Amino acid sequence: MSSSFGTLFRISTFGESHCKGVGVVIDGCPAGLPLTERDIQPQLDRRRPGQSSLTTDRSEADQVVIVSGTENGRTLGTPILLEVANRDQRPGDYGAMVNIPRPSHADFTYQMKYGTRASSGGGRSSARETIGTVAAGAVARKILREKLGIEIVAWVSSIGPLDASGIDPEHVTEQQVDRHQTRCPDPFAAEAMRALVSDLKEAGDSVGGIVSCVVRNVPPGVGEPTYDKLEAKLAQAMLAIPATKGFEVGSGFAGARLRGSVHNDPFVVRNGRIGTATNNSGGIQGGISNGEPIHFRVAFKPPATISLPQHTVDFAGNPVILAAEGRHDPCVVPRAVPIVEAMAALVILDLALQQEYRLTWRWGDGAVKTGG
Amino acid sequence: MSSSFGTLFRISTFGESHCKGVGVVIDGCPAGLPLTERDIQPQLDRRRPGQSSLTTDRSEADQVVIVSGTENGRTLGTPILLEVANRDQRPGDYGAMVNIPRPSHADFTYQMKYGTRASSGGGRSSARETIGTVAAGAVARKILREKLGIEIVAWVSSIGPLDASGIDPEHVTEQQVDRHQTRCPDPFAAEAMRALVSDLKEAGDSVGGIVSCVVRNVPPGVGEPTYDKLEAKLAQAMLAIPATKGFEVGSGFAGARLRGSVHNDPFVVRNGRIGTATNNSGGIQGGISNGEPIHFRVAFKPPATISLPQHTVDFAGNPVILAAEGRHDPCVVPRAVPIVEAMAALVILDLALQQEYRLTWRWGDGAVKTGG
Amino acid sequence: MSSSFGTLFRISTFGESHCKGVGVVIDGCPAGLPLTERDIQPQLDRRRPGQSSLTTDRSEADQVVIVSGTENGRTLGTPILLEVANRDQRPGDYGAMVNIPRPSHADFTYQMKYGTRASSGGGRSSARETIGTVAAGAVARKILREKLGIEIVAWVSSIGPLDASGIDPEHVTEQQVDRHQTRCPDPFAAEAMRALVSDLKEAGDSVGGIVSCVVRNVPPGVGEPTYDKLEAKLAQAMLAIPATKGFEVGSGFAGARLRGSVHNDPFVVRNGRIGTATNNSGGIQGGISNGEPIHFRVAFKPPATISLPQHTVDFAGNPVILAAEGRHDPCVVPRAVPIVEAMAALVILDLALQQEYRLTWRWGDGAVKTGG
Amino acid sequence: MSSSFGTLFRISTFGESHCKGVGVVIDGCPAGLPLTERDIQPQLDRRRPGQSSLTTDRSEADQVVIVSGTENGRTLGTPILLEVANRDQRPGDYGAMVNIPRPSHADFTYQMKYGTRASSGGGRSSARETIGTVAAGAVARKILREKLGIEIVAWVSSIGPLDASGIDPEHVTEQQVDRHQTRCPDPFAAEAMRALVSDLKEAGDSVGGIVSCVVRNVPPGVGEPTYDKLEAKLAQAMLAIPATKGFEVGSGFAGARLRGSVHNDPFVVRNGRIGTATNNSGGIQGGISNGEPIHFRVAFKPPATISLPQHTVDFAGNPVILAAEGRHDPCVVPRAVPIVEAMAALVILDLALQQEYRLTWRWGDGAVKTGG
Repeated sequence: MSSSFGTLFRISTFGESHCKGVGVVIDGCPAGLPLTERDIQPQLDRRRPGQSSLTTDRSEADQVVIVSGTENGRTLGTPILLEVANRDQRPGDYGAMVNIPRPSHADFTYQMKYGTRASSGGGRSSARETIGTVAAGAVARKILREKLGIEIVAWVSSIGPLDASGIDPEHVTEQQVDRHQTRCPDPFAAEAMRALVSDLKEAGDSVGGIVSCVVRNVPPGVGEPTYDKLEAKLAQAMLAIPATKGFEVGSGFAGARLRGSVHNDPFVVRNGRIGTATNNSGGIQGGISNGEPIHFRVAFKPPATISLPQHTVDFAGNPVILAAEGRHDPCVVPRAVPIVEAMAALVILDLALQQEYRLTWRWGDGAVKTGG
Repeated sequence: MSSSFGTLFRISTFGESHCKGVGVVIDGCPAGLPLTERDIQPQLDRRRPGQSSLTTDRSEADQVVIVSGTENGRTLGTPILLEVANRDQRPGDYGAMVNIPRPSHADFTYQMKYGTRASSGGGRSSARETIGTVAAGAVARKILREKLGIEIVAWVSSIGPLDASGIDPEHVTEQQVDRHQTRCPDPFAAEAMRALVSDLKEAGDSVGGIVSCVVRNVPPGVGEPTYDKLEAKLAQAMLAIPATKGFEVGSGFAGARLRGSVHNDPFVVRNGRIGTATNNSGGIQGGISNGEPIHFRVAFKPPATISLPQHTVDFAGNPVILAAEGRHDPCVVPRAVPIVEAMAALVILDLALQQEYRLTWRWGDGAVKTGG
Repeated sequence: MSSSFGTLFRISTFGESHCKGVGVVIDGCPAGLPLTERDIQPQLDRRRPGQSSLTTDRSEADQVVIVSGTENGRTLGTPILLEVANRDQRPGDYGAMVNIPRPSHADFTYQMKYGTRASSGGGRSSARETIGTVAAGAVARKILREKLGIEIVAWVSSIGPLDASGIDPEHVTEQQVDRHQTRCPDPFAAEAMRALVSDLKEAGDSVGGIVSCVVRNVPPGVGEPTYDKLEAKLAQAMLAIPATKGFEVGSGFAGARLRGSVHNDPFVVRNGRIGTATNNSGGIQGGISNGEPIHFRVAFKPPATISLPQHTVDFAGNPVILAAEGRHDPCVVPRAVPIVEAMAALVILDLALQQEYRLTWRWGDGAVKTGG
Repeated sequence: MSSSFGTLFRISTFGESHCKGVGVVIDGCPAGLPLTERDIQPQLDRRRPGQSSLTTDRSEADQVVIVSGTENGRTLGTPILLEVANRDQRPGDYGAMVNIPRPSHADFTYQMKYGTRASSGGGRSSARETIGTVAAGAVARKILREKLGIEIVAWVSSIGPLDASGIDPEHVTEQQVDRHQTRCPDPFAAEAMRALVSDLKEAGDSVGGIVSCVVRNVPPGVGEPTYDKLEAKLAQAMLAIPATKGFEVGSGFAGARLRGSVHNDPFVVRNGRIGTATNNSGGIQGGISNGEPIHFRVAFKPPATISLPQHTVDFAGNPVILAAEGRHDPCVVPRAVPIVEAMAALVILDLALQQEYRLTWRWGDGAVKTGG
């Protein structure tokens, strides 16, 4: 079940870098939702390579087609197939590397796991696999926005040693994020990041970074203790994105250094409802949303494929010097922004749907309603 | 399905702090495994409160009973119920707090989610819920050890601002870890940690910390791309532990600051097989184990329940000052060590079992075998 | 995941015939439901052996205990463990049969599957395994009755060559069914069945039978195409009951002999809503309930364990004559009635909960509501 | 999760009668399997309408394309998308029936469930939905044949009142079945069936029938007690096929009339292994295969869409007379044969894969091996 995610809003993705196409089947989408390719394409455009001089030069049109599940621009409640044709099918661009597993890439482990692997482009481990995630996430996001007014905004908060500052998670917008090639809404840091990535691209090297994300207007009650806690499913979702190495929610690793008397978020009455004065919890307590903004951060390693020569061994164990050919991204975090948002949308929608019956089928009290 | 975890080795836990008992049903355990309570009890003893002056003074015997699934000390392949009776059933010790949700505790969110909650002790959100996890994890661990020689060792690497140093993940042992009340195998840091926690207990405050974990001898090929990547399931598992705020694998957040030419792990031949010269990948590439040690870190926040007075509001929105009565842990990380190990064992065993058929049913090559 | 069933209202059963206990964990039960042992025990009493002279003489008290998941007689929304202690633990009553697999029993296949098996009483394949199902079903049934007014009534419609007649599925009640030892509400057939079973018991033989079931007041819309169609999940549930050999819904196998012009159920307006004039569909069309009564039938084979001598071979392949010792049921269908009802309740509740979000999260129309 | 099936070999289907395409994603297929469209197309050709004068006159080419998951004619172990384009997209052929739910069709229940439905052709409830099932089943079947030598053969055993006879389930072949338009391998019955269906087509009526199926060479040990018993999953799978009303395995409903002393299958030694002298069990005991041929029967109702006028009501409750236009199948069972075989293959492969780790990870005995 490795390529499926979700319980009620369930996605199943498919596709390698150089087969005929990539995409996703969505099962469980509510019926009647207005949905056309125009709702999905913009997020794919934010994800695709070739958007700016900072990313790989490959030009991938990545036009999504809704193959099933809608009629007259509305969902039927049946499975939705979203498909994107691959332009470059079997180009052999990576031919020289067939016998040399790229250091820190999935070439070696796919070969170990399956006894075979796609001969070029990373196959299933390619970033093209995230197209299905982003497409399904765009649908989830639309549902969350229309039914609950939920807003999801991610941005680049670090690239290499450079950190953004001054970003207000309560108000930052997608427009502010997209104003910069690096998707860092702090203009000062953004410019430094741009220069750094540009230099590294020139040098044939790569660099890591951090994506931050906020989800606003999630009602209280979303998240399923024990093992499907909201933060647990977010953590799974984020670590399922290629190249991720860490996840933290609310105070995160820094919170581990604090005392409880400092870290605790006291309850207050705000706008006629109970909220918290601070938000070290990141909007989640005991695995369940508390109505405050949910915020978390995701660490991405530097891309493994670089042009600089590396001393390594081939599959037969012979020492070789590898200098990757082809076109590679020196830094994935700007393109990772819509992927992080998509996974967040998928997690929250699925858990919100699971919460639904708990409200309607409850005995004896006035419950908080998540659905419209 | 919130209280279930795993696909082939699947656990379902139950129990609140003050009901009749807590525990777990394990479904899918291989047959013929020698298994008695003595295989499980030691890990429960490591988890339970009252082990040392540093933890809560509550004395909980927590004796596990194997109710089903074994005969003559061997597993039958049928579901195994592991049960621990609760000694303190409905003590009302927390009575004063019924109308006041503890800041940063799950009182508020459980009430929002379910429209009700256990009147005392945290109910399902209590740390007693982890007994089922630890019991099942002990079984998983035994299987991994006997079939694959896998060793899992976790330890406390930070408490508050204090960091351990000099710990060698390739060789650190459970015996070294348990030599100290704090479960930090660096004696110098351990003593400082002990003093810090002792002071905070006295002061009615609490403190967070970090648990590190290494898993040695995992064969290559374990982990299911895309959404059930090994690091993704570990992240879910760790963030499902109460009070966790972050997870990082391999180079983690620090890796996000590096360049690819520095971060990449070159392949080398070692002991007759292909390994990596460094291990920034943390033993995982593309969601699949590569045969190197898997290492990760988990951040725990300071416990929410403290005796120091806190300004907050009750469920009706009235301002109150809350000073928790009862017995509370000033720092959970020493007791969290066996929980982290248990969750790691559950993740790895379940993914290793999922890999099994991929090897036997493969066409045309010599595959790496995970099972015995 | 073999011992789990359901997606949102999910049960996990455990227990063999001679371990310490049997039962079930229910995950996903709505919160606030009034629930005590008295809601569950009556169905266990209907299931247990020794109820009448027609069943096995074993006396099993089978007292259920709610171990977790409730407080003050109401559900918390957390997992509910329902447990029944085994009185006869390891009696060795079946000792002589250890090396001889009983013909048409699960002894042989369990040994093949697991490489081991319980040494007595059938272990997991024993009818005691159904205690968990019946206990969980009693909870599901209460929820369906209280929230939707759903009634589930099963009865014995055939034993061996004897068929009941004159039973009106729209009005038959549990009281009418339980008036007879055989649970056949046709008094004339019931008496003949009683005599037949009594004779076969005397003769050391056994006999099969058919259980019919009706579910009234299921709202339209329950059932999940494609693979979780209402009839598909009912079929799975019924064939999961020990000793079952067939399932048919509505017109069933007889319907396969008809023409469409005769078989089709025309729509009519009745009581202000659209219903059907006939009900060959058995209340289900395209996998989804249509608001009419759901009715189906389940075939049970004669119990495999009989006292009459049988020519067979032992595990080593040596010819032997087997005459089972111990106490055996000559006919399971009277006791199967509450099991069929329980499985029906579990299927319908789980699918009704899955339907819930589809109603609340729908765009643009007036939908039929399943929940209260 | 309604459109997904399976645990390790997991399929997710998509597509309505008049959207852009229909098909399936297969997740979990073993790697290295030689696989091209030629392995799949023949079963789609057996399923499609227009094969003979007995089925609907619609001509559907139904050419399958492997979009992902293979390279150079072998599977990669990654998700496989099998897609078939719809030729007739939005033809409006069924326009007159938009406001009139067809009696015994899914029009009414889809509208109740989703609050909307496809305007023509049945949408998701159309028989075109089974294309995905058949395509995935062809892959499962090839794996079972190559790895275990398993043969799956289904045939038409009844149409309306006409029953086939003299068919030997141990030896009947696909070639014998396909020799007749009706897929009934008894030539005498086949001719009578052909005439009956032809007459009913002329008359604008339809008729039901029964499909029988045998699965040969399944090793002992396949099937997961309790709820995923082999017969339980087969029952779910068969009742998930459109228009099915019943399932029976082995002796089935007839077995319910017998005594145990007659029904029991004594063990014998045959070909050096333990088998059974008779096979009333249908190759399954206690939910687990015993090594004998598995045989079962599936009842299909007459198709709901007929040209004969029917008195019914429209969605507003107004009495109307409906005479369906368009092209309809008078009898689905000949085309259902490959669908039954496909679902059988999917069930058995998935359960065989689940059994795999139980063998390799077993302690202390010589186990029966299912995999190659």
